[in-house]
Amino acid sequence: MTTTLVIGPYTDTDTAAAKQAFAPVILDRISELAGLDETTRSAITALAYKGHTAVGPAEMDLLPKLGLIANYGVGYDAIDIPAATERGIRVTNTPDVLNDDVADLAVGMLLMQMREMEQASNWARSGNWKTRGEYRLAHRMTGGRAGIVGLGRIGREIADRLAAFKMDIHYYARSEKQTPGWTFHADPVSLAHAVDFLVIAIVGGPDTEKFVSKDVIDALGPRGVVVNISRGTTVDEAALLDALEQGRIAGAGLDVFLGEPDIDPCFYELSNVVIQPHHGSGTVETRAAMGQLQRDNIAAFHAGQPLLTAVN
Amino acid sequence: MTTTLVIGPYTDTDTAAAKQAFAPVILDRISELAGLDETTRSAITALAYKGHTAVGPAEMDLLPKLGLIANYGVGYDAIDIPAATERGIRVTNTPDVLNDDVADLAVGMLLMQMREMEQASNWARSGNWKTRGEYRLAHRMTGGRAGIVGLGRIGREIADRLAAFKMDIHYYARSEKQTPGWTFHADPVSLAHAVDFLVIAIVGGPDTEKFVSKDVIDALGPRGVVVNISRGTTVDEAALLDALEQGRIAGAGLDVFLGEPDIDPCFYELSNVVIQPHHGSGTVETRAAMGQLQRDNIAAFHAGQPLLTAVN
Repeated sequence: MTTTLVIGPYTDTDTAAAKQAFAPVILDRISELAGLDETTRSAITALAYKGHTAVGPAEMDLLPKLGLIANYGVGYDAIDIPAATERGIRVTNTPDVLNDDVADLAVGMLLMQMREMEQASNWARSGNWKTRGEYRLAHRMTGGRAGIVGLGRIGREIADRLAAFKMDIHYYARSEKQTPGWTFHADPVSLAHAVDFLVIAIVGGPDTEKFVSKDVIDALGPRGVVVNISRGTTVDEAALLDALEQGRIAGAGLDVFLGEPDIDPCFYELSNVVIQPHHGSGTVETRAAMGQLQRDNIAAFHAGQPLLTAVN
Repeated sequence: MTTTLVIGPYTDTDTAAAKQAFAPVILDRISELAGLDETTRSAITALAYKGHTAVGPAEMDLLPKLGLIANYGVGYDAIDIPAATERGIRVTNTPDVLNDDVADLAVGMLLMQMREMEQASNWARSGNWKTRGEYRLAHRMTGGRAGIVGLGRIGREIADRLAAFKMDIHYYARSEKQTPGWTFHADPVSLAHAVDFLVIAIVGGPDTEKFVSKDVIDALGPRGVVVNISRGTTVDEAALLDALEQGRIAGAGLDVFLGEPDIDPCFYELSNVVIQPHHGSGTVETRAAMGQLQRDNIAAFHAGQPLLTAVN
């Protein structure tokens, strides 16, 4: 009897690897779970999950023998961890292997925003460069002051990169960390006051909802830029949109949105926002590593060995 | 009698500053020089030049008392230096103040190219993210091998930034330099063989024409990316276009082109090229510093003091 359930949109490579390793039951989305017959559901002990739709008590109770949810991605805010723990279900994620790519995208969005590279590209490609002359002047990124909200593994990778752009690094974290002289702020408003660029790298979930509040955004000021590679929930998105529309901050680079991919259409109207379709980890190399780590956790679980990257 | 001639398209701020400092004669382009009457031309001792149109013997001979050409920009390949020297004309440029911005744009173009950020933005903005799903996977930038062609001041700034992206740094220069363990190549083909990303940061002019030849491009291979922030002349552009069209290299990020701004329209057809309209130094902050340095050189010349950034 098949004991592994695979849910989500995977690459062909990942699907083939999962088939070979586990001969799993495969579903496209969690909502299809209730459609499985009880015999199949009752045999499942491990779930490979990829998705942003909630996996809560109702879903878990459809899988009475479930012992592992192996999440694809570092952020596991879609999974109700207390409900899993209560049921004796272990949860794993795929940290670290995606840190570099997410940090790269954060830096890329900041460069694109400050140097107006997307608009400058359109200027050149549309022939305006030839017929109307130089593209307008943008603003310098190097030497600015960067504020990292959340100095976890990804936040640190971002800070390391921005330091090479001669930036003063400031950060918010729950407690002061060992750093190469970066400035700790216990309060995100104080952080925003001190910097030009606010890069959000905290975990998602209910505890950090609207952590970057209207007050934080206002403290950044009219030259400020917000970059978010965490989750749409970590920012007060309505306040961010207001600030962008009214020019109370200079711009934003956003890889994550509330309700994505059905994002607030107001974002489309804004030329001072770099929009990316949540592909911080979206490289062939990193997604392959994430899929491998997810499968390695499942294999360890089935073999009764310690999980590689346990969350609970 | 006015002794300073200002030629080129300047910002209003620069024009106002030049007017206040020198009460100059102002022209839009070098071709208008012959239209000035002889009395005016004969009084000119200093020329503030901004442009990519050649300033050669014919132009210099129209200004018999010329003692200084203060070029706006670090690249002075438009100015015939031997002809100037022969006539006792000193030439200055505006180095260093633009290094950071040019290096930033190089890194930005590489990130945009590797992570397909422009296409991903279009995917999100066009609604494809919502209706058709995730954008396709791109490729990782961090950890790649970078090859810098020309380890001058700008090349070094680029290398310092790419090192923070955990890259192995290789470089071509006329001689080995003091570096933090970067790998020297005496030959650009050897350099291209060794790396994934080739960033061109050599000076322009006749000596470096097509320095990045078809052989160099071919040595880079099908995963390779070319970034050029130097001059369009430094690459064999026809060979580069062929390689891009045929997928013999993966892509390019180009801020400079032959015949710019009237660039080869073949570039517009290519989705694997990030096109920027020669705005490596195109920030408010850097252009202000460049204008100031140009004026400081002119002021030093008129005062009989040492030039700040002499070329010859």
